[in-house]
Amino acid sequence: MITIWTYDFVPGGENGPRGLVRDLRLRWACEEAALDYEVKTTPFEDRGPDHYARQPFGQVPFLEDAGIKVFESGACLLYLARKSELLMPRDPVGEADALQWTIAALNSIEMVSVPWMVLSWSEGPDNGLTGWLDSRLAHMEAVLEDREWIAAGRFTVADIMLADVFRQTRRADAPAYPNIRAYKQRACARPAFRKAYEDQVAHFVAGDIARSG
Amino acid sequence: MITIWTYDFVPGGENGPRGLVRDLRLRWACEEAALDYEVKTTPFEDRGPDHYARQPFGQVPFLEDAGIKVFESGACLLYLARKSELLMPRDPVGEADALQWTIAALNSIEMVSVPWMVLSWSEGPDNGLTGWLDSRLAHMEAVLEDREWIAAGRFTVADIMLADVFRQTRRADAPAYPNIRAYKQRACARPAFRKAYEDQVAHFVAGDIARSG
Repeated sequence: MITIWTYDFVPGGENGPRGLVRDLRLRWACEEAALDYEVKTTPFEDRGPDHYARQPFGQVPFLEDAGIKVFESGACLLYLARKSELLMPRDPVGEADALQWTIAALNSIEMVSVPWMVLSWSEGPDNGLTGWLDSRLAHMEAVLEDREWIAAGRFTVADIMLADVFRQTRRADAPAYPNIRAYKQRACARPAFRKAYEDQVAHFVAGDIARSG
Repeated sequence: MITIWTYDFVPGGENGPRGLVRDLRLRWACEEAALDYEVKTTPFEDRGPDHYARQPFGQVPFLEDAGIKVFESGACLLYLARKSELLMPRDPVGEADALQWTIAALNSIEMVSVPWMVLSWSEGPDNGLTGWLDSRLAHMEAVLEDREWIAAGRFTVADIMLADVFRQTRRADAPAYPNIRAYKQRACARPAFRKAYEDQVAHFVAGDIARSG
């Protein structure tokens, strides 16, 4: 049984992260591959030494599986991908393709989109990283011109990562990026995504009820 | 035989990237594990469709190995790590530890340090990401308090990634981070690093001679 840790609470409301907390990536992968998992919580407020011992930056998610501990959503996805051919092709060419696109989502797209989002909170959407983000999105728009999924000619763990990076990047919803939008819609229409998303939202609603009770 | 692609040329001088181009990470891994490799070049100027077909953002490095193609330095390192226990422990706990720290270097540290560097070119070292970068470096300073290497109690591929991220982050050289500085010095004292570094610098010097000839 795989245990996924997330927070007990995150702020709700229009700008809150419910439905966007990165444990969703792990839930989604487990749902795609029909892996048994449970979800446990660590406090959002007053993060203590136990949390930092498991996640050195005080974030979520992290997982445990038969004594094996993993933090970083990207590492957790690659760890889970070893468990099922549904997440990662077993032929070396397809596996390398899924690996490179998982890392590209993290290190070539999210490396720009998340700092852009952080800057946009204080400086607005036209900030010092906007040109770089737009360039990366334009490259991805071209790449997705003739692909249903990003790697290996099929759905893989790289799509979980890439689609979720796009979900978190409002600028990717601009009219200039119809291929990105269609790709994101394909990914989010998958039953495994819907289950993961609805379970995460329900998790935080239940946390509200527990706090108010 | 593994082929690593890098540029034929990058600018020299004090602020040029010679010694910092990310093919160094792949050279370093191959040197640590005594893997056979060669280095080929793609034009730095006038990057053409062939380049974008191999690296969708027009960057380097990328590699080829018996028909398997990989881009993204992080993906290349994880690919190479499969080839040698010297790069990645084979026990599941140690392997997960090396995996999570490789991804953390990419997605929790470089995701802040590279955008910070990009902003610092136009806005100086006190920019909208400085507080976030300092926070990440402070976490890493604490993590490195009692560790020689970052994962699994030994040198792994995660150290290649993490040490190179610190090499690229001048702010990590501040007096507040003695553990980071000592860690970086340990990593850069390794013969495999020295060889990779000197070979990269020599590669670009040779490129200058070819251009001027």
